[in-house]
Amino acid sequence: MLTRIDHIGIACFDLDKTVEFYRATYGFEVFHTEVNEEQGVREAMLKINETSDGGASYLQLLEPTREDSAVGKWLAKNGEGVHHIAFGTADVDGDAEAIRAKGVRVLYDQPRIGSMGSRITFLHPKDCHGVLTELVTGNPEQSTAHH
Amino acid sequence: MLTRIDHIGIACFDLDKTVEFYRATYGFEVFHTEVNEEQGVREAMLKINETSDGGASYLQLLEPTREDSAVGKWLAKNGEGVHHIAFGTADVDGDAEAIRAKGVRVLYDQPRIGSMGSRITFLHPKDCHGVLTELVTGNPEQSTAHH
Repeated sequence: MLTRIDHIGIACFDLDKTVEFYRATYGFEVFHTEVNEEQGVREAMLKINETSDGGASYLQLLEPTREDSAVGKWLAKNGEGVHHIAFGTADVDGDAEAIRAKGVRVLYDQPRIGSMGSRITFLHPKDCHGVLTELVTGNPEQSTAHH
Repeated sequence: MLTRIDHIGIACFDLDKTVEFYRATYGFEVFHTEVNEEQGVREAMLKINETSDGGASYLQLLEPTREDSAVGKWLAKNGEGVHHIAFGTADVDGDAEAIRAKGVRVLYDQPRIGSMGSRITFLHPKDCHGVLTELVTGNPEQSTAHH
């Protein structure tokens, strides 16, 4: 069951400048940064609020590490903006299978590793009214370490 | 101070079909519907979680009521997808003025009425790394009535 808006993924050309925009304009601070070589992104997570399921909602700022990554191609076509939205669940495996059984294309056979050690998968935007949609199960140990 | 992701605004061609997609796929239920003639939209709010500031996070599904509305024009150009993101604050007036003073274009001189009696304004996407960004102060009475 999806129990929170986990994050909004925003693609940008320059991660440092975009982080600085969010800090200077709104006071949002960087909670975590990492490079995900498989996804071809360098990212910063800005924690906005905690959520009633014990998780949190973040902005995820994404800069491609290579032009031929999914985010790199998307940026070349669309320019900066919202790239995807993500819902949090305690059971990404079960939810992904249930959603696949409803005829929505799930992009990975099995969940892969996302931000902060989470396990993630994506749903095809053409099956989701134009919205690239991610499902996320957080890594409890990493969450604990940050709190 | 912005204290939550208040909602993600998603533009769609057919509100009823899109509501049904979110219900059938994820189990999300409609919390509220309304028509905002000034904005030229018919909308459904799906409540996803409550937030640590005492508010909540929603998906806001938006169907234009006329082709020449902002959302209607956006849909004609972009197709269905994420139209804007919104941050919640207790003081949309003060935050909008502070952000305007930093050189970010605020689209309204004074906040206008948004979903569920809230007061809202928007920041120019070209000043926000491509993201149309809304600031929202909820209507306490309406929120109480729904809880």
